[in-house]
Amino acid sequence: VILFIEIYKHNKEERIARTWGTTARGLPYVEEAITNAGDWLIGGDLEVIEPIKYNDGLDQYRLSPAQLREEFARRNADAVFAFQLRNPVHNGHALLMTDTRRRLLEMGYKNPVLLLHPLGGFTKADDVPLSVRMKQHEKVLEEGVLNPESTVVAIFPSPMHYAGPTEVQWHAKARINAGANFYIVGRDPAGMGHPTEKRDLYDADHGKKVLSMAPGLERLNILPFKVAAYDTKHNKMNFFDPSRKEDFLFISGTKMRSLAKNRESPPDGFMCPGGWKVLVEYYDSLAPPEGSSKLREAVA
Amino acid sequence: VILFIEIYKHNKEERIARTWGTTARGLPYVEEAITNAGDWLIGGDLEVIEPIKYNDGLDQYRLSPAQLREEFARRNADAVFAFQLRNPVHNGHALLMTDTRRRLLEMGYKNPVLLLHPLGGFTKADDVPLSVRMKQHEKVLEEGVLNPESTVVAIFPSPMHYAGPTEVQWHAKARINAGANFYIVGRDPAGMGHPTEKRDLYDADHGKKVLSMAPGLERLNILPFKVAAYDTKHNKMNFFDPSRKEDFLFISGTKMRSLAKNRESPPDGFMCPGGWKVLVEYYDSLAPPEGSSKLREAVA
Repeated sequence: VILFIEIYKHNKEERIARTWGTTARGLPYVEEAITNAGDWLIGGDLEVIEPIKYNDGLDQYRLSPAQLREEFARRNADAVFAFQLRNPVHNGHALLMTDTRRRLLEMGYKNPVLLLHPLGGFTKADDVPLSVRMKQHEKVLEEGVLNPESTVVAIFPSPMHYAGPTEVQWHAKARINAGANFYIVGRDPAGMGHPTEKRDLYDADHGKKVLSMAPGLERLNILPFKVAAYDTKHNKMNFFDPSRKEDFLFISGTKMRSLAKNRESPPDGFMCPGGWKVLVEYYDSLAPPEGSSKLREAVA
Repeated sequence: VILFIEIYKHNKEERIARTWGTTARGLPYVEEAITNAGDWLIGGDLEVIEPIKYNDGLDQYRLSPAQLREEFARRNADAVFAFQLRNPVHNGHALLMTDTRRRLLEMGYKNPVLLLHPLGGFTKADDVPLSVRMKQHEKVLEEGVLNPESTVVAIFPSPMHYAGPTEVQWHAKARINAGANFYIVGRDPAGMGHPTEKRDLYDADHGKKVLSMAPGLERLNILPFKVAAYDTKHNKMNFFDPSRKEDFLFISGTKMRSLAKNRESPPDGFMCPGGWKVLVEYYDSLAPPEGSSKLREAVA
């Protein structure tokens, strides 16, 4: 039920320009949800009668901000640190999260709890779908890469806008409402390549800078990430050490997806085996039927 | 002298999109100052050794924020209300300013002072130049349309961006720094027509709404204007009364300029005679030499 209804003209050009900092064609969320939308917008106070059940096996992960705050209280968390993601969790992510917990313990917190909060709404076509990611996250906890005792996994029901510095403020603010007081932010959060030019759409440090200055986020402590990469000397994900940069291998989300797609294995220690299997099975299920060019390639 | 220098990549597309809410060609300030600018930006803490003198007869109006605050203190102002403008002052503006003073006196202030703060930097080619506007403002005070005792006239040294809701925050914030605690905001502040489409670039109420919510502006009281128009029944500028809308004539900045340009008189009571004369003389000085098409038209 919407109360105190307000109706606005939908100035799409202005909305897109101010949100994405570009009006170039090919922005995934714009094409999904704005270009073909109507010319008017309705706003107001929303009263929800009961939460929506999707009956897709994931409803137990759909926790409201109030439910999340209750869960943190039940676990006696004295610090909650949130990690936003839209990709499978690899050991670099895990390193970041466990290292953050270590830092919070060092700061004197007794029971820091991680909110692992994968994005549940629209993502672009080549991202891994939610149900597969949730299965992968389950494996990461089952295999002990993350500690289930100090980790709450829930779905963040927002669509992905790929709007970089604008979107990261929404990502952070929403987690404050869910009880987080620490937010982990990496390089180029919510960023993507420019849709029509050969460059990143956003400066890689812009999101972090905006978060540290944005009004309304004063209550949130921003934890900038160190970059993790695959350390070929120690065969595991490690914080990047510029003094021996030749030892490190950067495996992007795109690279990870293409390895899984081609049934190639990532280097040992990149991701827990159970989690990797989930991805490979997903890409197998997508494989075109026998006789297609894809299979011929595999035979050749 | 710049200290603590920071250097940024100049992402022009993003800067334009986020500032203007469009990337359409033909935005005056963009063409003046961004399109041909370099690819890097330098920032830092600026230390000014001494104020610049322009020696153009207007230096007495170039007051720093600190000088303005001193001037308000000298006049024992207990409220300062700022009026931003880039056009000659007509009696509609004056009505607004005197009515604002009346409201402030009603609210219990004993000595509200007006900061009449015309913009002194870049304006688009068809706007009236600063020196002419300053002469016109002098006439408005000389002829008693505004009371010199309760009015401080100073030049606001910013360029005009025509960036509507983004720019109005700068306009308001800068006046807080200069000692204002009330800011008069009208319809579509700092707005203009869309450079390539037949519509206003911004929603007329957007600027006002942004000002009332923008962080950092809490100390400023926003005074939304009623619209003033020429009342043909009473032969003067008056607040628009929708119950007898057929009596009102709206005279836009463009219309005003074209009247002065063509040496036509505006309706009685639209502007003080001395002020109008300044405008007519300015456009006369621009008139093309004898024999030009303009004069032929006038003869025909």
